[in-house]
Amino acid sequence: MIGIFDSGVGGMTVARAVEQLLPHYPLTYLGDIARTPYGTKSARTIIDYSLENTRFLVDNGAKLIIIACNSAASVATDRLRREFQVPIIEVISPAVEQALMHSQKGRIGIIGTRATIRSGVYETKILAQHPEYKVFSTACPLLVPLVEEGWIGKRETKMILRRYLHTLKDQQIDTLVLGCTHYPLLKHLIQPRIGKKVILIDSSVAVAEYLQHYLAGETTLTPDQSHDPTLNRYFVTDLTESAQFIAAKIFHRPIDLQPV
Amino acid sequence: MIGIFDSGVGGMTVARAVEQLLPHYPLTYLGDIARTPYGTKSARTIIDYSLENTRFLVDNGAKLIIIACNSAASVATDRLRREFQVPIIEVISPAVEQALMHSQKGRIGIIGTRATIRSGVYETKILAQHPEYKVFSTACPLLVPLVEEGWIGKRETKMILRRYLHTLKDQQIDTLVLGCTHYPLLKHLIQPRIGKKVILIDSSVAVAEYLQHYLAGETTLTPDQSHDPTLNRYFVTDLTESAQFIAAKIFHRPIDLQPV
Repeated sequence: MIGIFDSGVGGMTVARAVEQLLPHYPLTYLGDIARTPYGTKSARTIIDYSLENTRFLVDNGAKLIIIACNSAASVATDRLRREFQVPIIEVISPAVEQALMHSQKGRIGIIGTRATIRSGVYETKILAQHPEYKVFSTACPLLVPLVEEGWIGKRETKMILRRYLHTLKDQQIDTLVLGCTHYPLLKHLIQPRIGKKVILIDSSVAVAEYLQHYLAGETTLTPDQSHDPTLNRYFVTDLTESAQFIAAKIFHRPIDLQPV
Repeated sequence: MIGIFDSGVGGMTVARAVEQLLPHYPLTYLGDIARTPYGTKSARTIIDYSLENTRFLVDNGAKLIIIACNSAASVATDRLRREFQVPIIEVISPAVEQALMHSQKGRIGIIGTRATIRSGVYETKILAQHPEYKVFSTACPLLVPLVEEGWIGKRETKMILRRYLHTLKDQQIDTLVLGCTHYPLLKHLIQPRIGKKVILIDSSVAVAEYLQHYLAGETTLTPDQSHDPTLNRYFVTDLTESAQFIAAKIFHRPIDLQPV
């Protein structure tokens, strides 16, 4: 069974991508809505929360963990790998791989929460492979609340996006990593503002594709052909209207969120 | 000793108002930054957090508790009064009293977080005394992240404020309660947008004035003339740059935030 955790509902874009690519793998999701967001908090606090979330999923039978939250992935991955025996897959490395695959000019932009950008993890991973590349990072802390409020189409959201993307546009990036699992919901607004030639890397899709590849070479974790995605379990540490609204928006079906 | 808790840093506007009116009462503040914000979360989760915060302050010697968070005050006050022996003062009733004192036409607006507005607590308290009054409530969930990001002067903040205040303006309110302790930091933007004749009620100042009045009639809680506000203690459950920035902005001096 695959366990996925996130600070809230954003990571459901990862769960959705996994469901679509690997429908016969049972999946359990944990959204830590009671303590969301992580992206504005300190590394130490995010690590503590990530340990608790992983413990919950492992206790519920997870044999593999996906950290679907970029903020958690950026600061807690090493610690989780030391503490737990199960494979820990995080959302950042697959997005980096895809960015390196697509970038022609070696000018890559990263957008994410304050915690993700402060960690410098995308930049470090990109430069480790291509020290000659240029990486431009911008924290976009207001995008998560705007998405969670359902303000996706509003004029203010577009203006705030333009403000956040301004520097990256000036730097003439050719590839932009959406380094937060909420951002795929804004993809249609980001593309025209950053320029239609810029390739957007969706970290949710990237991690699902990486997982598919990983499982193909894995013999202990096998699909259950009788399983279908409607049997997947979605746990939340708090149940809010906003969470139900976004879950339905991501999955295009009502999701039964179970409070824990 | 007076204990004050809030979901984060917003309640420091209450601590500041208390320091100014009652400088000789020792004060301990707890900001639950690790789990901020409360306003988007469910009543049950907010009650759990409020019990833990109050326990911490009482264990640290608080003889009186101020709930400086409107979201917590709106859903957790009754429960805290049942669980603890110390007096529990909350930020809502004093603001309601001041609104009733100032309103001429009996048309009162309330702005607050989603949790505060959903609770209907301001409306209930106002109508209990004046059933003929009209109360108009609007949740303004994006204002807290905008303040915490330091976007107070930005054009988008003004536009979002105008959007939130639009209905209240149409209703020709004569009094507006700032039902969230972050909002006093936006007072200078709210006043011109809602109309200069509308009286703004700052719940932070209202609760400090109420406390002053309460302590005047109280013999067990007495001031310590050797105490001054720089000796007050400010605890936070997470230490972030944004918290330090806002604390300094509220107090006009650097505040030594101690993580717990």
